[in-house]
Amino acid sequence: MENYRVCQLIRDTRFEGFLLVRGAEKKTDRNGRDYVDMNLGDRTGEINAKIWYWDGKQEVPEAGKPILVQGLVQEYNGRLQMRVEKWRPAAETDRVPMGELVPAAPRAPEEMLSEIRETVASFTSEPLRKLTEEMLRMAGSRLNWFPAAQRMHHAERSGLLHHTTDMLRLAKGALEVYPWLNRDLLLAGVILHDLGKLEELKSDERGNVTDYTRDGQLLGHLVRGITLLDRAAEAAGVTGEPLVLLEHMLLSHHGEAEFGSPRPPMFPEAEALHWIDMMDARLNTMKSAWEKTPEGAFSEKIFSLERRIYHPRYTEDAE
Amino acid sequence: MENYRVCQLIRDTRFEGFLLVRGAEKKTDRNGRDYVDMNLGDRTGEINAKIWYWDGKQEVPEAGKPILVQGLVQEYNGRLQMRVEKWRPAAETDRVPMGELVPAAPRAPEEMLSEIRETVASFTSEPLRKLTEEMLRMAGSRLNWFPAAQRMHHAERSGLLHHTTDMLRLAKGALEVYPWLNRDLLLAGVILHDLGKLEELKSDERGNVTDYTRDGQLLGHLVRGITLLDRAAEAAGVTGEPLVLLEHMLLSHHGEAEFGSPRPPMFPEAEALHWIDMMDARLNTMKSAWEKTPEGAFSEKIFSLERRIYHPRYTEDAE
Amino acid sequence: MENYRVCQLIRDTRFEGFLLVRGAEKKTDRNGRDYVDMNLGDRTGEINAKIWYWDGKQEVPEAGKPILVQGLVQEYNGRLQMRVEKWRPAAETDRVPMGELVPAAPRAPEEMLSEIRETVASFTSEPLRKLTEEMLRMAGSRLNWFPAAQRMHHAERSGLLHHTTDMLRLAKGALEVYPWLNRDLLLAGVILHDLGKLEELKSDERGNVTDYTRDGQLLGHLVRGITLLDRAAEAAGVTGEPLVLLEHMLLSHHGEAEFGSPRPPMFPEAEALHWIDMMDARLNTMKSAWEKTPEGAFSEKIFSLERRIYHPRYTEDAE
Amino acid sequence: MENYRVCQLIRDTRFEGFLLVRGAEKKTDRNGRDYVDMNLGDRTGEINAKIWYWDGKQEVPEAGKPILVQGLVQEYNGRLQMRVEKWRPAAETDRVPMGELVPAAPRAPEEMLSEIRETVASFTSEPLRKLTEEMLRMAGSRLNWFPAAQRMHHAERSGLLHHTTDMLRLAKGALEVYPWLNRDLLLAGVILHDLGKLEELKSDERGNVTDYTRDGQLLGHLVRGITLLDRAAEAAGVTGEPLVLLEHMLLSHHGEAEFGSPRPPMFPEAEALHWIDMMDARLNTMKSAWEKTPEGAFSEKIFSLERRIYHPRYTEDAE
Amino acid sequence: MENYRVCQLIRDTRFEGFLLVRGAEKKTDRNGRDYVDMNLGDRTGEINAKIWYWDGKQEVPEAGKPILVQGLVQEYNGRLQMRVEKWRPAAETDRVPMGELVPAAPRAPEEMLSEIRETVASFTSEPLRKLTEEMLRMAGSRLNWFPAAQRMHHAERSGLLHHTTDMLRLAKGALEVYPWLNRDLLLAGVILHDLGKLEELKSDERGNVTDYTRDGQLLGHLVRGITLLDRAAEAAGVTGEPLVLLEHMLLSHHGEAEFGSPRPPMFPEAEALHWIDMMDARLNTMKSAWEKTPEGAFSEKIFSLERRIYHPRYTEDAE
Amino acid sequence: MENYRVCQLIRDTRFEGFLLVRGAEKKTDRNGRDYVDMNLGDRTGEINAKIWYWDGKQEVPEAGKPILVQGLVQEYNGRLQMRVEKWRPAAETDRVPMGELVPAAPRAPEEMLSEIRETVASFTSEPLRKLTEEMLRMAGSRLNWFPAAQRMHHAERSGLLHHTTDMLRLAKGALEVYPWLNRDLLLAGVILHDLGKLEELKSDERGNVTDYTRDGQLLGHLVRGITLLDRAAEAAGVTGEPLVLLEHMLLSHHGEAEFGSPRPPMFPEAEALHWIDMMDARLNTMKSAWEKTPEGAFSEKIFSLERRIYHPRYTEDAE
Repeated sequence: MENYRVCQLIRDTRFEGFLLVRGAEKKTDRNGRDYVDMNLGDRTGEINAKIWYWDGKQEVPEAGKPILVQGLVQEYNGRLQMRVEKWRPAAETDRVPMGELVPAAPRAPEEMLSEIRETVASFTSEPLRKLTEEMLRMAGSRLNWFPAAQRMHHAERSGLLHHTTDMLRLAKGALEVYPWLNRDLLLAGVILHDLGKLEELKSDERGNVTDYTRDGQLLGHLVRGITLLDRAAEAAGVTGEPLVLLEHMLLSHHGEAEFGSPRPPMFPEAEALHWIDMMDARLNTMKSAWEKTPEGAFSEKIFSLERRIYHPRYTEDAE
Repeated sequence: MENYRVCQLIRDTRFEGFLLVRGAEKKTDRNGRDYVDMNLGDRTGEINAKIWYWDGKQEVPEAGKPILVQGLVQEYNGRLQMRVEKWRPAAETDRVPMGELVPAAPRAPEEMLSEIRETVASFTSEPLRKLTEEMLRMAGSRLNWFPAAQRMHHAERSGLLHHTTDMLRLAKGALEVYPWLNRDLLLAGVILHDLGKLEELKSDERGNVTDYTRDGQLLGHLVRGITLLDRAAEAAGVTGEPLVLLEHMLLSHHGEAEFGSPRPPMFPEAEALHWIDMMDARLNTMKSAWEKTPEGAFSEKIFSLERRIYHPRYTEDAE
Repeated sequence: MENYRVCQLIRDTRFEGFLLVRGAEKKTDRNGRDYVDMNLGDRTGEINAKIWYWDGKQEVPEAGKPILVQGLVQEYNGRLQMRVEKWRPAAETDRVPMGELVPAAPRAPEEMLSEIRETVASFTSEPLRKLTEEMLRMAGSRLNWFPAAQRMHHAERSGLLHHTTDMLRLAKGALEVYPWLNRDLLLAGVILHDLGKLEELKSDERGNVTDYTRDGQLLGHLVRGITLLDRAAEAAGVTGEPLVLLEHMLLSHHGEAEFGSPRPPMFPEAEALHWIDMMDARLNTMKSAWEKTPEGAFSEKIFSLERRIYHPRYTEDAE
Repeated sequence: MENYRVCQLIRDTRFEGFLLVRGAEKKTDRNGRDYVDMNLGDRTGEINAKIWYWDGKQEVPEAGKPILVQGLVQEYNGRLQMRVEKWRPAAETDRVPMGELVPAAPRAPEEMLSEIRETVASFTSEPLRKLTEEMLRMAGSRLNWFPAAQRMHHAERSGLLHHTTDMLRLAKGALEVYPWLNRDLLLAGVILHDLGKLEELKSDERGNVTDYTRDGQLLGHLVRGITLLDRAAEAAGVTGEPLVLLEHMLLSHHGEAEFGSPRPPMFPEAEALHWIDMMDARLNTMKSAWEKTPEGAFSEKIFSLERRIYHPRYTEDAE
Repeated sequence: MENYRVCQLIRDTRFEGFLLVRGAEKKTDRNGRDYVDMNLGDRTGEINAKIWYWDGKQEVPEAGKPILVQGLVQEYNGRLQMRVEKWRPAAETDRVPMGELVPAAPRAPEEMLSEIRETVASFTSEPLRKLTEEMLRMAGSRLNWFPAAQRMHHAERSGLLHHTTDMLRLAKGALEVYPWLNRDLLLAGVILHDLGKLEELKSDERGNVTDYTRDGQLLGHLVRGITLLDRAAEAAGVTGEPLVLLEHMLLSHHGEAEFGSPRPPMFPEAEALHWIDMMDARLNTMKSAWEKTPEGAFSEKIFSLERRIYHPRYTEDAE
Repeated sequence: MENYRVCQLIRDTRFEGFLLVRGAEKKTDRNGRDYVDMNLGDRTGEINAKIWYWDGKQEVPEAGKPILVQGLVQEYNGRLQMRVEKWRPAAETDRVPMGELVPAAPRAPEEMLSEIRETVASFTSEPLRKLTEEMLRMAGSRLNWFPAAQRMHHAERSGLLHHTTDMLRLAKGALEVYPWLNRDLLLAGVILHDLGKLEELKSDERGNVTDYTRDGQLLGHLVRGITLLDRAAEAAGVTGEPLVLLEHMLLSHHGEAEFGSPRPPMFPEAEALHWIDMMDARLNTMKSAWEKTPEGAFSEKIFSLERRIYHPRYTEDAE
């Protein structure tokens, strides 16, 4: 019995090892018997698990904590499901490999953050540098671990930095193709565009988003980002066009009213920001779907992409 | 030759009297001859006018100023047009009846403003009263004459007060039908919902909007209203739910993403605000179209309503 | 063991008391065993209930009748469900508090109906008064208890009167703000706009809608309302504009083709009717969702509103 | 100088002959000079014509009457236009070939009408036969010349009969492919589906539609058709399903809410009626566009089809 | 115990007889027990069936093969379900009435195919005849049994021929109403329009579609049909307009971009093809839904039609 | 009198110099007098020009040829227009600076083409290299000067190469951010994605598109590109997945059905191609609009972007 990763699990085998409890709840089956319904995961994926015949007085496994679990992998309604046979909370002495259990950005947050800071330091526009620095200061240490989303793309520890730095690299590539774009403005837009998510999502330090905040629901990260920026501008003493340009870039980066931007991008740097954001978000989503689909096969319909995905063989052999 | 109102002008008659220059520009005709193309109006309507055979060295009539004009009313492409025969700027000694020349709200601004102030004074919620008072303070004297729009509805001197006070009355009527709504919150929302227009439109003191501001174009009055409110909250020392509720009401009062609200109304007072705003805006637009259509007839297609309008006879006589 | 209301039920408690059977059906579980699947309710809400291990020969509880029931409240798939332990039909001697079991309008139907009749009596337009009276005569006593819908808004005993009288009050408020509207026409439109529902829905005298009629499915209440009005006009000897105006108001009161109105409102009274109807329907729906959501919390996505709802705390305390 | 047909006119040639005045209006040019702006036509097409230097006191040519006209065909803004040099009203003694001047159905109305009557006589369903006969009786002699539209398809003298009989033939063909359809119901639907147009359009006896009626604007031919049918049913003593089925077919024959049908077709004969109507309307529109486009060429964008049309060469020669 | 057809099965009865296995899979229930989940059918319909308490080592029934089965018909979640009590694969000696088990076109494929071939032989256009013959040659014997779809319309053995020949008859009817259409072009379009489905769907010889092909997913039958036609043209030595016209007819036959056609029909024969295809597909879908709905009743919402269907009584009796 | 560039022209000045005739047509004014209506341009823009009082017998200036022209720049309907005073065709001896007259890509076609060829040579996948080389061979020398569009983006001499090579650079930048993408497949997709335009547009060697071809209208460059690729594959002996992947990339590169792609991108390289294409097309369009708008100002509504554009000052000065 080996310690497989979750994405490698197959039907009718047994699993034993550490997994993270992503959520757990006591429920009652049709016949009135209690059981525990959990989602367990490691950084490669997630599996639903059931503890049948639960004694109602026991503690339910705690969300966000690792457990040692043994169970049988079965299929239910076309999806894998683990029938738990034994489990216990991980003890401090277990030396659980947390890095294996939590989906996380491929690079260290410090490295990504310093890439961002160096970029800001290189700005020749003083107001843009001041605004960006003040916003980063207000974001504080949460940036180190904050994810970019609950589920869509970069839903992982440090996902916000991952998304931001990949976009920074795309933007720098684009600046070589379009040297007439204003470098500082585009890069400042990339760095600031999603910082409002820090006030929109409730995340723990593992990058696990449990819910939206009240402000996230009522205003969204675009608008909350703008009021944050407005306060940063007051603190940094910045007024006039540079502030309004960045406010517009935050407001318009989803591109269309239908996707939450009441204004479309109205100058080239805002337009570039929108497409760079789209491309990075979509390729991250595509990558997840593509990795889970075997070569030469089609996935089920991917909800966020509204289509099925094909994982090519990438060889010249005929079908 | 009588001094008709603009909405009474008919083809093939002469007009002589004072009109306001709404806009004027020197142009060149197909044959290379200069002429002046103007829009002249009084409070009942607007007519296009041409001064042919213009001597290029003369001053073009100034927008926003009254002139004394004599001309022949003709029809061109299905619309009335005045062929100017004589004109001169109004002199100080002319005692121009400005009240007849500028479309304006039917009530005095002071009266409307004090209706608003009394409403605010009656609030039992201290944070809502403070926020509303601070926003009115920031709006300052421009409120007296600011219009609600360039063209759509309440495009008139003091139109913003007109729209706001009609909505206040509708809201007070609704509060009697739905007493479970939070009175202060709904009324504060009504008073504040369009104040961002003060930063969105460029208007002169006659309520004539010449253009959108840079911030109006790039952000719109919903979002600019929110940053103003955020600063008012800082000044008034208000935080927490009351601020966020009002921010949401500003953001959602257009009802749908398609119409500029990235969030739909998410609590009953926001929902009520949206419909009261719709109803007042639409009935004002309807009234204008209906007044211009003869009884028993259909209008041309009204651009802002996307339909033709019928002006009923309201009698029991058969057709 | 207390007699809680349905909206107060919580998981893992027992309930005993009278409830109304809203629907009941014998079913078979995955293992081939019969059980009864019911929806039970009082005026505050509805709960699904199961009688497991049903003896196939027994009578299934009858829809529309009250029963005395005892059971355990559990949670299944995120919703409360009652596991029935004992039940029997209510006997005549039980003195069941029917008023507590059936959702009903807050006012007595006679009171609402006389408010409507007084309004009609005040009409100065004879054709409008005749048409409205004839339509009320044709509606007959069903008006007393007819609901306004199966599920969306005012789905309750006398809901049609409730919806109509709340709209009448809103309309009278609006007539003070817009005195140029034709009073009789607007009020007649309010009273008649939904009478076609009497032929569209199948409802029992408790306001419980079991289905749509054949005509309701094939034509809808807008069009069926128009043919009823056409016959009323024949009976009342009314022709010409007053009839056509009311026909148009019935046809256009949903506002847009997408929502069932092939014509948009084309005169001010039709426009006003549309918004008053929207506002009353939406605020009634909002109120139901808002009442079921705890203060300071968000609801699940409300199907008919296509959004989540927030129930504010309405206090100045920070979050 | 020959008497060409309008569709054969080419630039820089002279025309002399009889044409029908489709519309004529006195206008004023930019320089304040009066002229007459007319549309002249024969059954093959229409051309705009100008009489420059008009003496304001003359009578303007009367719409709907033939004139004898001589003029120069020029091109203005990409369209042909006639510069009128001489004209006079046709005199009674002119023996104007009216058949050449008015677009008309290719068959005689009597022939088409008797095809319809024979079809009705063959119905085995008594209620359907009675309803159809009563509706035809109410339609009266207007059916002989009424067009099917102002502009879209079958906009010609007897166009309503033309459209109806072509659809009858298509329907009879379809009944052979789908013998399980109810013959009488489908054919009755075809005959009645557009009779409401008699109350929707204002047409003269030449099939020239000048406007929509009040009822046409406020209700449309679908709904007015239904109230007519309802009265026909009362006169013929028909009730129940046959009436409702036909009402539904009238209501649903545009197929979708977006195109004016608040209900989609809900039984097979209604579905068949919708597609037969679509096919006949579209092919009639296509034919007009295709006839006006030279072989091997593309038309301009056709407004009602929202596309350009290609007129194939239909030969095997390469391009 | 009788051998009912599947569409006649009712709750709480037993069935014994031959059925075709449409799909079968081993699954695990919530309690970890294996069972077999199957769909069984005959030409009149399909029923889900369960074999509970499955011994994991047995062979699962093979899809596409007939079995002899005995079981109890129950209802689960509003749908009928068979609880299998006994079963075995059909033996060669069983003389299974395959014609009763597989949904199939009402006419023999040979008869339909020869109707098509005679039509092609009658073409006067040589390039159209050559192209059509070459495409039929490439299609080969698969045409005999290929279905027109997996589920939507004509999902049956020889469904592609059924759809094509019904369309041919409709087209020939239309050619009598519109004799100006090019006969060969329209008929060639009908015959070729769906041949790309042979490369889009994976079907067995019983017309049972198990999946889409890789090319079907990535390109669809419209585009794959065009590359096939391009190769047929190369083989047949056809170039120029006839080829491009047919390519366009294949590309545009779904009518709108939203339904898969990047070009709308741009000449009359393409337009006619589109409507004939729509009409035949929709009436086939309607017929299936209508046959399953009792007279005088409404169906549930039909997924592919996005509406409920009414099956009229077609008698003059009132409701 | 200086030789200004077209984009520098201002009202009420004279121009004298060489310009390219982009189109010219004889027309007739309202008064029946002939004139010539031309569009003249250089690489910086285009201006409408009129030669009034044209002698009908003269030759009209030839489209695509340079002329020496002198005229007065005036404004008509808000746009600049030149009133031609003198002109003659350019003579061979004039040494016209053609590079100044034709909008062209900023780099030499040979340089761009060799960048493409080197990329292809670096492919490790033999089928992709063969397919790409064969397609480039079939494209031939037209690639040197072919534009990418008639009007939207890269509408210039060698615009197709300009668009392709800018996309290649963006793609190479993206491959560094997403190293898991298949390099050869993405780059082959970039090179081939628009080659179908060679058969879609009619362009002269100056990159001036006069029209769409018959195949361009009836099929579009996506589908024609696929049949070309299919023939290239036959010539190169390539079959199986590599061919289908590229066919899909061509088909899906517009991203959505609404924009002409009946399939959305279904694997990561197709997704990347779509966004790189969008970004390059949009930034090219943005750049044109932005260059024509003065700093600190808003443009008129740009048709292809459906919005107004702001040209920022990019300085920290307040408004």
